[in-house]
Amino acid sequence: MAELLRLDERRGAVPQDALGLLHQHSLFAAMPTEMFMLFSSAAKKTVLNKGDQLFLQDDPAEWFYFIVSGWIKLFRETIDGEEAVLDVLTSGHIFGESAIFDGGIHMAAAAAAENTVLLRLPTSLLKSAITKNHEVALGMLASISRQRRQQSQDIEKLSLQNTSQRIACFLLRMCKATDQQEVSLSLPYDKSLIAARLSMKSETFSRALNKLQQETSISIKGSTVIIPAVGELAAFACNQCSQEFPCSDLQ
Amino acid sequence: MAELLRLDERRGAVPQDALGLLHQHSLFAAMPTEMFMLFSSAAKKTVLNKGDQLFLQDDPAEWFYFIVSGWIKLFRETIDGEEAVLDVLTSGHIFGESAIFDGGIHMAAAAAAENTVLLRLPTSLLKSAITKNHEVALGMLASISRQRRQQSQDIEKLSLQNTSQRIACFLLRMCKATDQQEVSLSLPYDKSLIAARLSMKSETFSRALNKLQQETSISIKGSTVIIPAVGELAAFACNQCSQEFPCSDLQ
Repeated sequence: MAELLRLDERRGAVPQDALGLLHQHSLFAAMPTEMFMLFSSAAKKTVLNKGDQLFLQDDPAEWFYFIVSGWIKLFRETIDGEEAVLDVLTSGHIFGESAIFDGGIHMAAAAAAENTVLLRLPTSLLKSAITKNHEVALGMLASISRQRRQQSQDIEKLSLQNTSQRIACFLLRMCKATDQQEVSLSLPYDKSLIAARLSMKSETFSRALNKLQQETSISIKGSTVIIPAVGELAAFACNQCSQEFPCSDLQ
Repeated sequence: MAELLRLDERRGAVPQDALGLLHQHSLFAAMPTEMFMLFSSAAKKTVLNKGDQLFLQDDPAEWFYFIVSGWIKLFRETIDGEEAVLDVLTSGHIFGESAIFDGGIHMAAAAAAENTVLLRLPTSLLKSAITKNHEVALGMLASISRQRRQQSQDIEKLSLQNTSQRIACFLLRMCKATDQQEVSLSLPYDKSLIAARLSMKSETFSRALNKLQQETSISIKGSTVIIPAVGELAAFACNQCSQEFPCSDLQ
């Protein structure tokens, strides 16, 4: 309850540019103007600090969320407190919306992986929009299909790639097809969360990262990654994948 | 080509009870009668022998399929020929339909895991039905959401359960909540395919199965599994899962 009150204090006016971002999302882009107005006037800003829990698995889903900035971790937790991280999402993504097809219940928990600004929107409004408006239903189909495609890729990688290849793949998906020269990247969030996102324990991740640095020319210092040759990293990761770099879903 | 001709020879009249089964699927149940008639008159029976390949990953999706009897394996394959099995489906399920949201391309290959009878249906008809009819779009949303929910569970299991627990979970999901006495099950398909469905190599599967038989009272001979106490198996598998037996999605 204290947590809820604290979150409430940090809710304020919704900035116009956040509504602009929201409108670009495939779910809202094809929506009739009057319907989008209903969503934008119902939207509330929610500010989370890194580590704040937003909702738990099996919570009733009164709201769904749009990420304005920051990172959100979606995860499932065993009774013993072990976490399976299903996804880590950043600005421009929505989450919690699929609860309307899951009996109104969140199938995963959500927490802020970094300081994060969200718009929260009423699930009841989305349910009614999908039921009433065909374009919204089609937008929702496109959105869920995209998530499903990504999950198929995740299952493939967990089945076939070794731990070093999974890290290489994660880094590679941050590169562009046009990257010919040396690439310098910043890891988007904590290494411990990257490990969890790739379904590894922290110790396994450290060992796999060392192996990756031994077997390729990449180097990692703190959160900075230097990739001298993207092609070399692709050769390392993609031979245990049904796709080739650049991944078709990122083009 | 020889393969395609061979399949064609085994295509015959569509049995009425297969159309009855098709009509029960959530995608077709709420469809207007005239629209369902279009699908049922366009349906063609396809008979596959165990091992027959139906389509490859990245094939254009002219057809989607409804399983009348048998088992279909959906998988992705690396250049080296290693397979990640995404799902193994039986009668009453459709597959290949999501290609309409993936640029008209199959995102996974399909092959018969046992002798199988299918109905094949034109993807163009489904695409038009979803575009024109709101009920069909909602039926498709329910269907894709169900698949997505299952994939989330698969990712969770791959992240948190050990190999023996994954086998225990697979067996447990074949039991009923009301099973109090000793349960005798037949494995639904080959052990090598169960191993692949659980993202294990055959050797790993054998070791994990031995461990499961040492640590619980279950016994497996050939394809027959004896589970003396379902509760014991649940205690073994479910402490590394966010759900408890009986799984809510099976109720």
